[in-house]
Amino acid sequence: MGEFTLPVRIYLEDTDAQGVVYNASYFRFMERSRTEWLREHGIDHDELRHQHGVMLVLTAVTARFKATAHLSDMLYVGADVSDVRVIFEQSIRRNSADGELVCEGQAEVACVNAELRKPERFPAALLKELAQ
Amino acid sequence: MGEFTLPVRIYLEDTDAQGVVYNASYFRFMERSRTEWLREHGIDHDELRHQHGVMLVLTAVTARFKATAHLSDMLYVGADVSDVRVIFEQSIRRNSADGELVCEGQAEVACVNAELRKPERFPAALLKELAQ
Amino acid sequence: MGEFTLPVRIYLEDTDAQGVVYNASYFRFMERSRTEWLREHGIDHDELRHQHGVMLVLTAVTARFKATAHLSDMLYVGADVSDVRVIFEQSIRRNSADGELVCEGQAEVACVNAELRKPERFPAALLKELAQ
Amino acid sequence: MGEFTLPVRIYLEDTDAQGVVYNASYFRFMERSRTEWLREHGIDHDELRHQHGVMLVLTAVTARFKATAHLSDMLYVGADVSDVRVIFEQSIRRNSADGELVCEGQAEVACVNAELRKPERFPAALLKELAQ
Repeated sequence: MGEFTLPVRIYLEDTDAQGVVYNASYFRFMERSRTEWLREHGIDHDELRHQHGVMLVLTAVTARFKATAHLSDMLYVGADVSDVRVIFEQSIRRNSADGELVCEGQAEVACVNAELRKPERFPAALLKELAQ
Repeated sequence: MGEFTLPVRIYLEDTDAQGVVYNASYFRFMERSRTEWLREHGIDHDELRHQHGVMLVLTAVTARFKATAHLSDMLYVGADVSDVRVIFEQSIRRNSADGELVCEGQAEVACVNAELRKPERFPAALLKELAQ
Repeated sequence: MGEFTLPVRIYLEDTDAQGVVYNASYFRFMERSRTEWLREHGIDHDELRHQHGVMLVLTAVTARFKATAHLSDMLYVGADVSDVRVIFEQSIRRNSADGELVCEGQAEVACVNAELRKPERFPAALLKELAQ
Repeated sequence: MGEFTLPVRIYLEDTDAQGVVYNASYFRFMERSRTEWLREHGIDHDELRHQHGVMLVLTAVTARFKATAHLSDMLYVGADVSDVRVIFEQSIRRNSADGELVCEGQAEVACVNAELRKPERFPAALLKELAQ
Protein backbone atom coordinates (compact mmCIF):
# COMPACT_ATOMS: atom_id res chain seq x y z
CA MET A 1 0.00 0.00 0.00
CA GLY A 2 2.53 2.58 -1.18
CA GLU A 3 1.90 6.26 -0.65
CA PHE A 4 -0.20 8.05 -3.25
CA THR A 5 0.76 11.56 -4.36
CA LEU A 6 -1.42 14.17 -6.06
CA PRO A 7 0.18 17.24 -7.69
CA VAL A 8 -1.67 20.47 -6.89
CA ARG A 9 -0.93 23.86 -8.46
CA ILE A 10 -1.57 26.88 -6.21
CA TYR A 11 -4.05 29.37 -7.72
CA LEU A 12 -5.33 32.71 -6.36
CA GLU A 13 -8.35 30.95 -4.86
CA ASP A 14 -6.02 29.01 -2.51
CA THR A 15 -4.15 32.03 -1.16
CA ASP A 16 -5.04 34.85 1.23
CA ALA A 17 -4.13 38.48 1.85
CA GLN A 18 -1.10 37.40 3.89
CA GLY A 19 0.34 36.31 0.52
CA VAL A 20 0.42 32.63 1.43
CA VAL A 21 -1.78 29.57 1.05
CA TYR A 22 -4.84 29.96 3.34
CA ASN A 23 -4.96 27.34 6.11
CA ALA A 24 -8.25 25.71 5.13
CA SER A 25 -6.97 25.26 1.57
CA TYR A 26 -4.66 22.49 2.83
CA PHE A 27 -7.70 20.56 4.01
CA ARG A 28 -9.21 20.86 0.52
CA PHE A 29 -5.97 19.50 -0.95
CA MET A 30 -5.88 16.63 1.54
CA GLU A 31 -9.49 15.74 0.63
CA ARG A 32 -8.63 15.76 -3.10
CA SER A 33 -5.69 13.44 -2.47
CA ARG A 34 -7.76 11.03 -0.35
CA THR A 35 -10.44 11.01 -3.06
CA GLU A 36 -7.85 10.18 -5.74
CA TRP A 37 -6.35 7.50 -3.47
CA LEU A 38 -9.81 5.95 -3.23
CA ARG A 39 -10.41 6.34 -6.97
CA GLU A 40 -7.08 4.63 -7.71
CA HIS A 41 -8.24 1.77 -5.52
CA GLY A 42 -11.48 1.59 -7.49
CA ILE A 43 -13.58 3.47 -4.94
CA ASP A 44 -15.53 6.66 -5.61
CA HIS A 45 -17.61 8.84 -3.21
CA ASP A 46 -20.51 8.76 -5.64
CA GLU A 47 -20.34 4.99 -6.20
CA LEU A 48 -20.13 4.25 -2.48
CA ARG A 49 -23.31 6.24 -2.00
CA HIS A 50 -25.27 4.73 -4.84
CA GLN A 51 -23.99 1.15 -4.78
CA HIS A 52 -23.40 0.61 -1.06
CA GLY A 53 -25.63 3.30 0.48
CA VAL A 54 -22.75 4.55 2.58
CA MET A 55 -20.59 7.62 2.74
CA LEU A 56 -17.11 8.03 4.07
CA VAL A 57 -17.11 10.82 6.61
CA LEU A 58 -14.19 12.52 8.21
CA THR A 59 -14.19 12.11 11.97
CA ALA A 60 -11.01 14.04 12.74
CA VAL A 61 -8.28 15.87 10.95
CA THR A 62 -5.08 17.56 12.08
CA ALA A 63 -2.40 19.54 10.34
CA ARG A 64 0.95 20.92 11.40
CA PHE A 65 2.26 23.63 9.09
CA LYS A 66 6.00 23.29 8.44
CA ALA A 67 6.64 25.84 5.68
CA THR A 68 4.62 28.44 3.85
CA ALA A 69 3.46 27.82 0.28
CA HIS A 70 2.72 30.57 -2.23
CA LEU A 71 0.92 31.44 -5.45
CA SER A 72 2.10 29.34 -8.44
CA ASP A 73 3.79 26.71 -6.23
CA MET A 74 3.42 23.08 -7.21
CA LEU A 75 2.57 20.99 -4.16
CA TYR A 76 2.52 17.21 -3.92
CA VAL A 77 -0.16 15.97 -1.62
CA GLY A 78 0.45 12.51 -0.20
CA ALA A 79 -2.13 10.08 1.11
CA ASP A 80 -1.62 6.68 2.65
CA VAL A 81 -3.85 4.58 4.87
CA SER A 82 -1.99 3.79 8.08
CA ASP A 83 -4.36 1.58 9.95
CA VAL A 84 -7.62 -0.39 9.89
CA ARG A 85 -9.40 2.50 11.59
CA VAL A 86 -8.72 4.13 8.22
CA ILE A 87 -6.41 6.88 9.18
CA PHE A 88 -4.82 8.64 6.25
CA GLU A 89 -1.29 9.92 6.84
CA GLN A 90 -0.98 13.01 4.71
CA SER A 91 1.87 15.23 3.63
CA ILE A 92 2.12 18.23 1.34
CA ARG A 93 5.49 18.88 -0.29
CA ARG A 94 6.70 21.62 -2.62
CA ASN A 95 7.93 21.11 -6.22
CA SER A 96 8.24 17.33 -6.11
CA ALA A 97 6.88 14.33 -4.26
CA ASP A 98 10.02 14.33 -2.07
CA GLY A 99 10.42 18.13 -1.89
CA GLU A 100 10.24 20.47 1.10
CA LEU A 101 7.56 19.48 3.62
CA VAL A 102 4.91 22.23 3.65
CA CYS A 103 2.23 20.63 5.79
CA GLU A 104 1.65 17.24 7.35
CA GLY A 105 -1.62 15.95 8.68
CA GLN A 106 -3.71 13.03 9.70
CA ALA A 107 -7.29 12.42 8.69
CA GLU A 108 -9.56 9.81 10.22
CA VAL A 109 -12.42 8.56 8.12
CA ALA A 110 -15.50 6.63 9.22
CA CYS A 111 -18.25 4.94 7.22
CA VAL A 112 -21.87 6.05 7.69
CA ASN A 113 -25.13 5.03 6.11
CA ALA A 114 -25.82 7.60 3.39
CA GLU A 115 -29.49 7.93 4.33
CA LEU A 116 -29.58 7.49 8.11
CA ARG A 117 -26.14 9.06 8.72
CA LYS A 118 -25.48 6.32 11.28
CA PRO A 119 -22.08 4.58 11.59
CA GLU A 120 -21.86 1.45 9.47
CA ARG A 121 -19.24 -1.25 8.81
CA PHE A 122 -17.02 -0.57 5.81
CA PRO A 123 -18.26 -2.40 2.69
CA ALA A 124 -16.22 -5.59 2.14
CA ALA A 125 -14.93 -4.34 -1.22
CA LEU A 126 -13.59 -1.19 0.41
CA LEU A 127 -12.13 -3.09 3.36
CA LYS A 128 -10.29 -5.43 1.02
CA GLU A 129 -8.73 -2.48 -0.78
CA LEU A 130 -7.76 -0.80 2.49
CA ALA A 131 -6.23 -3.98 3.88
CA GLN A 132 -3.82 -4.42 0.98
CA MET B 1 -40.30 44.82 -2.32
CA GLY B 2 -37.53 47.00 -0.86
CA GLU B 3 -33.92 46.02 -1.26
CA PHE B 4 -32.48 43.63 1.31
CA THR B 5 -28.96 44.17 2.64
CA LEU B 6 -26.67 41.65 4.35
CA PRO B 7 -23.53 42.87 6.18
CA VAL B 8 -20.47 40.70 5.44
CA ARG B 9 -17.11 41.02 7.20
CA ILE B 10 -14.06 40.17 5.05
CA TYR B 11 -11.92 37.37 6.54
CA LEU B 12 -8.66 35.84 5.28
CA GLU B 13 -10.65 33.07 3.56
CA ASP B 14 -12.20 35.68 1.25
CA THR B 15 -8.95 37.29 0.12
CA ASP B 16 -6.13 36.22 -2.18
CA ALA B 17 -2.40 36.78 -2.59
CA GLN B 18 -3.07 40.00 -4.53
CA GLY B 19 -4.16 41.39 -1.15
CA VAL B 20 -7.76 41.90 -2.21
CA VAL B 21 -11.04 40.01 -2.08
CA TYR B 22 -10.86 37.03 -4.50
CA ASN B 23 -13.35 37.30 -7.38
CA ALA B 24 -15.33 34.13 -6.65
CA SER B 25 -15.83 35.32 -3.05
CA TYR B 26 -18.28 37.96 -4.32
CA PHE B 27 -20.45 35.20 -5.73
CA ARG B 28 -20.47 33.51 -2.32
CA PHE B 29 -21.57 36.81 -0.75
CA MET B 30 -24.28 37.31 -3.37
CA GLU B 31 -25.59 33.78 -2.67
CA ARG B 32 -25.67 34.45 1.09
CA SER B 33 -27.63 37.65 0.50
CA ARG B 34 -30.14 35.94 -1.83
CA THR B 35 -30.57 33.16 0.74
CA GLU B 36 -31.26 35.70 3.51
CA TRP B 37 -33.66 37.56 1.19
CA LEU B 38 -35.54 34.28 0.72
CA ARG B 39 -35.41 33.48 4.45
CA GLU B 40 -36.80 36.94 5.28
CA HIS B 41 -39.65 36.18 2.90
CA GLY B 42 -40.25 32.88 4.69
CA ILE B 43 -38.48 30.72 2.11
CA ASP B 44 -35.54 28.40 2.84
CA HIS B 45 -33.46 26.21 0.45
CA ASP B 46 -33.95 23.24 2.73
CA GLU B 47 -37.71 23.79 3.12
CA LEU B 48 -38.24 24.23 -0.63
CA ARG B 49 -36.56 20.87 -1.16
CA HIS B 50 -38.39 18.96 1.52
CA GLN B 51 -41.83 20.61 1.32
CA HIS B 52 -42.11 21.42 -2.38
CA GLY B 53 -39.57 18.98 -3.88
CA VAL B 54 -37.93 21.82 -5.78
CA MET B 55 -34.65 23.66 -5.68
CA LEU B 56 -33.82 27.14 -6.83
CA VAL B 57 -30.93 26.97 -9.24
CA LEU B 58 -28.87 29.76 -10.61
CA THR B 59 -29.08 29.98 -14.39
CA ALA B 60 -26.83 32.98 -14.92
CA VAL B 61 -24.81 35.42 -12.92
CA THR B 62 -22.74 38.46 -13.82
CA ALA B 63 -20.61 40.85 -11.84
CA ARG B 64 -18.82 44.07 -12.66
CA PHE B 65 -16.14 45.02 -10.17
CA LYS B 66 -16.11 48.74 -9.35
CA ALA B 67 -13.66 48.99 -6.46
CA THR B 68 -11.38 46.61 -4.60
CA ALA B 69 -12.28 45.38 -1.15
CA HIS B 70 -9.75 44.23 1.45
CA LEU B 71 -9.23 42.21 4.61
CA SER B 72 -11.34 43.45 7.56
CA ASP B 73 -13.67 45.51 5.34
CA MET B 74 -17.37 45.48 6.14
CA LEU B 75 -19.38 44.99 2.96
CA TYR B 76 -23.15 45.36 2.56
CA VAL B 77 -24.54 42.91 0.05
CA GLY B 78 -27.83 43.95 -1.47
CA ALA B 79 -30.45 41.70 -3.04
CA ASP B 80 -33.70 42.63 -4.71
CA VAL B 81 -35.90 40.75 -7.14
CA SER B 82 -36.33 42.80 -10.28
CA ASP B 83 -38.68 40.77 -12.37
CA VAL B 84 -40.97 37.71 -12.60
CA ARG B 85 -38.16 35.74 -14.21
CA VAL B 86 -36.66 36.07 -10.73
CA ILE B 87 -33.64 38.13 -11.44
CA PHE B 88 -31.89 39.41 -8.36
CA GLU B 89 -30.24 42.81 -8.71
CA GLN B 90 -27.24 42.69 -6.42
CA SER B 91 -24.80 45.24 -5.11
CA ILE B 92 -21.91 45.08 -2.68
CA ARG B 93 -20.99 48.29 -0.85
CA ARG B 94 -18.26 49.10 1.66
CA ASN B 95 -18.82 50.19 5.30
CA SER B 96 -22.53 50.90 5.03
CA ALA B 97 -25.57 49.98 2.99
CA ASP B 98 -25.12 53.17 0.97
CA GLY B 99 -21.30 53.21 0.97
CA GLU B 100 -18.85 52.92 -1.94
CA LEU B 101 -20.00 50.47 -4.61
CA VAL B 102 -17.53 47.54 -4.66
CA CYS B 103 -19.29 45.13 -6.99
CA GLU B 104 -22.64 44.99 -8.75
CA GLY B 105 -24.19 41.94 -10.32
CA GLN B 106 -27.25 40.20 -11.54
CA ALA B 107 -28.28 36.66 -10.75
CA GLU B 108 -31.01 34.74 -12.51
CA VAL B 109 -32.64 31.93 -10.61
CA ALA B 110 -34.81 29.11 -11.94
CA CYS B 111 -36.85 26.47 -10.15
CA VAL B 112 -36.10 22.77 -10.78
CA ASN B 113 -37.51 19.56 -9.40
CA ALA B 114 -35.17 18.50 -6.58
CA GLU B 115 -35.15 14.86 -7.69
CA LEU B 116 -35.41 14.98 -11.48
CA ARG B 117 -33.49 18.27 -11.86
CA LYS B 118 -36.04 19.31 -14.51
CA PRO B 119 -37.41 22.88 -14.72
CA GLU B 120 -40.60 23.33 -12.74
CA ARG B 121 -43.04 26.17 -12.06
CA PHE B 122 -42.29 28.17 -8.94
CA PRO B 123 -44.38 26.98 -5.95
CA ALA B 124 -47.37 29.33 -5.43
CA ALA B 125 -46.17 30.34 -1.96
CA LEU B 126 -42.84 31.42 -3.40
CA LEU B 127 -44.42 33.20 -6.34
CA LYS B 128 -46.68 35.15 -4.01
CA GLU B 129 -43.68 36.34 -2.02
CA LEU B 130 -41.76 37.26 -5.18
CA ALA B 131 -44.71 39.19 -6.61
CA GLN B 132 -45.04 41.50 -3.61
CA MET C 1 -10.34 35.72 29.36
CA GLY C 2 -13.80 34.25 28.88
CA GLU C 3 -14.61 32.28 25.75
CA PHE C 4 -15.65 34.25 22.68
CA THR C 5 -18.46 32.96 20.46
CA LEU C 6 -19.22 33.87 16.85
CA PRO C 7 -22.58 32.90 15.30
CA VAL C 8 -22.23 31.48 11.78
CA ARG C 9 -25.12 30.68 9.46
CA ILE C 10 -24.54 27.73 7.07
CA TYR C 11 -24.93 28.68 3.39
CA LEU C 12 -24.66 26.54 0.24
CA GLU C 13 -21.00 27.55 -0.12
CA ASP C 14 -20.22 25.74 3.16
CA THR C 15 -21.84 22.43 2.25
CA ASP C 16 -20.92 19.60 -0.11
CA ALA C 17 -22.64 16.94 -2.19
CA GLN C 18 -22.86 14.65 0.85
CA GLY C 19 -25.47 17.14 2.09
CA VAL C 20 -23.41 18.24 5.08
CA VAL C 21 -20.93 20.97 5.94
CA TYR C 22 -17.66 20.33 4.05
CA ASN C 23 -14.73 19.59 6.37
CA ALA C 24 -12.52 22.53 5.36
CA SER C 25 -15.43 24.91 6.02
CA TYR C 26 -14.97 24.34 9.76
CA PHE C 27 -11.44 25.70 9.47
CA ARG C 28 -12.80 28.83 7.79
CA PHE C 29 -15.26 29.25 10.67
CA MET C 30 -12.52 28.75 13.25
CA GLU C 31 -10.39 31.41 11.51
CA ARG C 32 -13.31 33.86 11.50
CA SER C 33 -13.86 33.30 15.22
CA ARG C 34 -10.14 33.75 16.05
CA THR C 35 -10.13 36.96 13.98
CA GLU C 36 -13.15 38.31 15.86
CA TRP C 37 -11.56 37.28 19.17
CA LEU C 38 -8.51 39.33 18.18
CA ARG C 39 -10.66 42.24 16.98
CA GLU C 40 -12.58 42.24 20.27
CA HIS C 41 -9.23 42.47 22.04
CA GLY C 42 -8.29 45.43 19.83
CA ILE C 43 -6.10 43.44 17.44
CA ASP C 44 -6.59 43.18 13.68
CA HIS C 45 -4.65 41.16 11.05
CA ASP C 46 -4.27 44.26 8.94
CA GLU C 47 -3.13 46.49 11.82
CA LEU C 48 -0.61 43.93 13.06
CA ARG C 49 0.92 43.90 9.60
CA HIS C 50 1.04 47.65 9.08
CA GLN C 51 1.78 48.84 12.63
CA HIS C 52 3.96 46.03 13.95
CA GLY C 53 5.23 44.46 10.70
CA VAL C 54 4.17 41.04 11.90
CA MET C 55 1.57 38.49 10.96
CA LEU C 56 -0.02 35.80 13.04
CA VAL C 57 0.44 32.49 11.29
CA LEU C 58 -1.17 29.22 12.09
CA THR C 59 1.37 26.54 12.95
CA ALA C 60 -1.00 23.67 13.61
CA VAL C 61 -4.70 22.98 13.69
CA THR C 62 -6.75 19.93 14.59
CA ALA C 63 -10.44 19.16 14.52
CA ARG C 64 -12.52 16.25 15.74
CA PHE C 65 -15.97 16.12 14.19
CA LYS C 66 -18.68 15.21 16.72
CA ALA C 67 -21.90 15.78 14.80
CA THR C 68 -22.84 16.72 11.27
CA ALA C 69 -24.08 20.21 10.48
CA HIS C 70 -26.36 21.08 7.56
CA LEU C 71 -27.61 23.84 5.30
CA SER C 72 -29.37 26.66 7.21
CA ASP C 73 -27.97 25.57 10.58
CA MET C 74 -26.81 28.28 12.97
CA LEU C 75 -23.46 27.35 14.47
CA TYR C 76 -21.69 29.07 17.35
CA VAL C 77 -17.95 29.07 16.93
CA GLY C 78 -16.01 29.45 20.15
CA ALA C 79 -12.49 30.75 20.56
CA ASP C 80 -10.40 31.05 23.69
CA VAL C 81 -6.68 31.35 24.20
CA SER C 82 -5.52 28.51 26.43
CA ASP C 83 -1.87 29.17 26.88
CA VAL C 84 1.05 31.57 26.32
CA ARG C 85 2.07 29.58 23.24
CA VAL C 86 -1.20 31.09 21.93
CA ILE C 87 -3.26 28.02 21.46
CA PHE C 88 -6.88 28.70 20.70
CA GLU C 89 -9.33 26.14 22.05
CA GLN C 90 -12.19 26.10 19.59
CA SER C 91 -15.65 24.62 19.54
CA ILE C 92 -18.52 24.75 17.09
CA ARG C 93 -22.01 24.25 18.49
CA ARG C 94 -25.44 24.14 16.85
CA ASN C 95 -28.31 26.63 17.49
CA SER C 96 -26.85 28.29 20.57
CA ALA C 97 -23.54 28.94 22.27
CA ASP C 98 -24.19 25.95 24.55
CA GLY C 99 -25.94 23.77 21.95
CA GLU C 100 -24.91 20.39 20.51
CA LEU C 101 -21.15 20.12 19.93
CA VAL C 102 -20.55 19.84 16.16
CA CYS C 103 -16.78 20.14 15.99
CA GLU C 104 -14.00 20.86 18.43
CA GLY C 105 -10.48 21.87 17.52
CA GLN C 106 -7.25 23.43 18.57
CA ALA C 107 -5.30 26.01 16.62
CA GLU C 108 -1.75 27.08 17.38
CA VAL C 109 -0.71 30.51 16.21
CA ALA C 110 2.81 31.93 15.90
CA CYS C 111 4.02 35.43 15.13
CA VAL C 112 6.22 36.05 12.08
CA ASN C 113 7.75 39.12 10.52
CA ALA C 114 5.40 40.19 7.74
CA GLU C 115 8.24 40.86 5.31
CA LEU C 116 10.87 38.24 6.15
CA ARG C 117 8.36 35.57 7.25
CA LYS C 118 10.72 34.70 10.11
CA PRO C 119 9.43 33.92 13.62
CA GLU C 120 9.26 36.98 15.83
CA ARG C 121 8.26 37.75 19.44
CA PHE C 122 4.64 38.75 19.88
CA PRO C 123 4.22 42.56 20.02
CA ALA C 124 3.89 43.71 23.65
CA ALA C 125 0.40 45.11 23.03
CA LEU C 126 -0.76 41.74 21.75
CA LEU C 127 0.96 39.83 24.54
CA LYS C 128 -0.72 42.00 27.14
CA GLU C 129 -4.12 41.23 25.63
CA LEU C 130 -3.37 37.51 25.46
CA ALA C 131 -2.16 37.41 29.04
CA GLN C 132 -5.38 38.81 30.48
CA MET D 1 -4.43 32.13 -30.54
CA GLY D 2 -6.25 28.81 -30.24
CA GLU D 3 -8.43 28.09 -27.23
CA PHE D 4 -6.73 26.71 -24.15
CA THR D 5 -8.41 23.95 -22.13
CA LEU D 6 -7.76 22.94 -18.52
CA PRO D 7 -9.15 19.63 -17.19
CA VAL D 8 -10.69 19.97 -13.72
CA ARG D 9 -11.90 17.07 -11.58
CA ILE D 10 -14.88 17.84 -9.30
CA TYR D 11 -14.16 17.19 -5.62
CA LEU D 12 -16.43 17.54 -2.56
CA GLU D 13 -15.08 21.06 -1.97
CA ASP D 14 -16.62 22.16 -5.29
CA THR D 15 -20.12 20.85 -4.61
CA ASP D 16 -22.96 21.95 -2.34
CA ALA D 17 -25.87 20.43 -0.45
CA GLN D 18 -28.01 20.58 -3.60
CA GLY D 19 -25.74 17.78 -4.85
CA VAL D 20 -24.30 19.84 -7.69
CA VAL D 21 -21.29 22.07 -8.32
CA TYR D 22 -21.70 25.30 -6.28
CA ASN D 23 -22.01 28.41 -8.49
CA ALA D 24 -18.93 30.25 -7.23
CA SER D 25 -16.83 27.15 -7.93
CA TYR D 26 -17.15 27.82 -11.67
CA PHE D 27 -15.47 31.18 -11.14
CA ARG D 28 -12.58 29.43 -9.38
CA PHE D 29 -12.27 27.06 -12.36
CA MET D 30 -12.36 29.96 -14.83
CA GLU D 31 -9.59 31.71 -12.87
CA ARG D 32 -7.45 28.55 -12.89
CA SER D 33 -7.89 28.25 -16.64
CA ARG D 34 -7.00 31.92 -17.26
CA THR D 35 -3.93 31.51 -15.05
CA GLU D 36 -2.80 28.45 -17.03
CA TRP D 37 -3.50 30.28 -20.29
CA LEU D 38 -1.20 33.06 -19.07
CA ARG D 39 1.41 30.57 -17.83
CA GLU D 40 1.38 28.81 -21.22
CA HIS D 41 2.04 32.20 -22.80
CA GLY D 42 4.96 32.72 -20.42
CA ILE D 43 3.09 35.00 -18.03
CA ASP D 44 2.61 34.36 -14.31
CA HIS D 45 0.67 36.39 -11.67
CA ASP D 46 3.69 36.35 -9.40
CA GLU D 47 6.16 37.36 -12.13
CA LEU D 48 3.94 40.21 -13.36
CA ARG D 49 3.90 41.56 -9.84
CA HIS D 50 7.60 41.27 -9.16
CA GLN D 51 9.03 42.03 -12.62
CA HIS D 52 6.52 44.56 -13.95
CA GLY D 53 4.96 45.87 -10.72
CA VAL D 54 1.49 45.22 -12.10
CA MET D 55 -1.34 42.86 -11.41
CA LEU D 56 -4.07 41.64 -13.67
CA VAL D 57 -7.42 42.35 -12.05
CA LEU D 58 -10.79 41.13 -13.06
CA THR D 59 -13.14 43.98 -13.92
CA ALA D 60 -16.19 41.96 -14.84
CA VAL D 61 -17.26 38.36 -15.13
CA THR D 62 -20.45 36.68 -16.26
CA ALA D 63 -21.60 33.09 -16.43
CA ARG D 64 -24.63 31.37 -17.87
CA PHE D 65 -25.20 27.88 -16.52
CA LYS D 66 -26.26 25.40 -19.21
CA ALA D 67 -26.11 22.05 -17.44
CA THR D 68 -25.44 20.86 -13.91
CA ALA D 69 -22.14 19.23 -13.03
CA HIS D 70 -21.66 16.74 -10.19
CA LEU D 71 -19.15 15.12 -7.86
CA SER D 72 -16.43 13.15 -9.72
CA ASP D 73 -17.21 14.80 -13.08
CA MET D 74 -14.28 15.77 -15.28
CA LEU D 75 -14.78 19.28 -16.64
CA TYR D 76 -12.75 20.99 -19.36
CA VAL D 77 -12.40 24.68 -18.75
CA GLY D 78 -11.67 26.72 -21.85
CA ALA D 79 -10.00 30.12 -22.02
CA ASP D 80 -9.33 32.30 -25.03
CA VAL D 81 -8.65 36.00 -25.35
CA SER D 82 -11.23 37.53 -27.64
CA ASP D 83 -10.17 41.12 -27.86
CA VAL D 84 -7.52 43.75 -27.06
CA ARG D 85 -9.51 44.82 -24.01
CA VAL D 86 -8.44 41.36 -22.82
CA ILE D 87 -11.72 39.61 -22.57
CA PHE D 88 -11.47 35.89 -21.96
CA GLU D 89 -14.19 33.80 -23.55
CA GLN D 90 -14.64 30.85 -21.23
CA SER D 91 -16.46 27.56 -21.42
CA ILE D 92 -16.73 24.57 -19.12
CA ARG D 93 -17.52 21.22 -20.71
CA ARG D 94 -18.05 17.76 -19.24
CA ASN D 95 -15.86 14.68 -19.91
CA SER D 96 -13.89 16.10 -22.83
CA ALA D 97 -12.82 19.39 -24.34
CA ASP D 98 -15.74 19.16 -26.78
CA GLY D 99 -18.23 17.52 -24.38
CA GLU D 100 -21.53 18.86 -23.04
CA LEU D 101 -21.45 22.58 -22.29
CA VAL D 102 -21.86 23.03 -18.51
CA CYS D 103 -21.18 26.74 -18.15
CA GLU D 104 -20.07 29.54 -20.40
CA GLY D 105 -18.77 32.91 -19.30
CA GLN D 106 -16.83 35.99 -20.11
CA ALA D 107 -14.16 37.57 -17.94
CA GLU D 108 -12.70 41.01 -18.48
CA VAL D 109 -9.24 41.62 -17.11
CA ALA D 110 -7.50 44.96 -16.55
CA CYS D 111 -3.92 45.77 -15.58
CA VAL D 112 -3.24 47.77 -12.39
CA ASN D 113 -0.10 48.91 -10.66
CA ALA D 114 0.61 46.32 -7.95
CA GLU D 115 1.43 48.95 -5.35
CA LEU D 116 -0.85 51.88 -6.17
CA ARG D 117 -3.72 49.71 -7.49
CA LYS D 118 -4.21 52.30 -10.27
CA PRO D 119 -4.94 51.26 -13.87
CA GLU D 120 -1.81 50.86 -15.97
CA ARG D 121 -0.99 49.95 -19.57
CA PHE D 122 -0.36 46.27 -20.15
CA PRO D 123 3.41 45.48 -20.14
CA ALA D 124 4.69 45.18 -23.74
CA ALA D 125 5.70 41.55 -23.23
CA LEU D 126 2.18 40.68 -22.14
CA LEU D 127 0.58 42.70 -24.93
CA LYS D 128 2.70 40.90 -27.50
CA GLU D 129 1.51 37.55 -26.20
CA LEU D 130 -2.11 38.69 -26.14
CA ALA D 131 -1.93 40.08 -29.67
CA GLN D 132 -0.81 36.79 -31.19
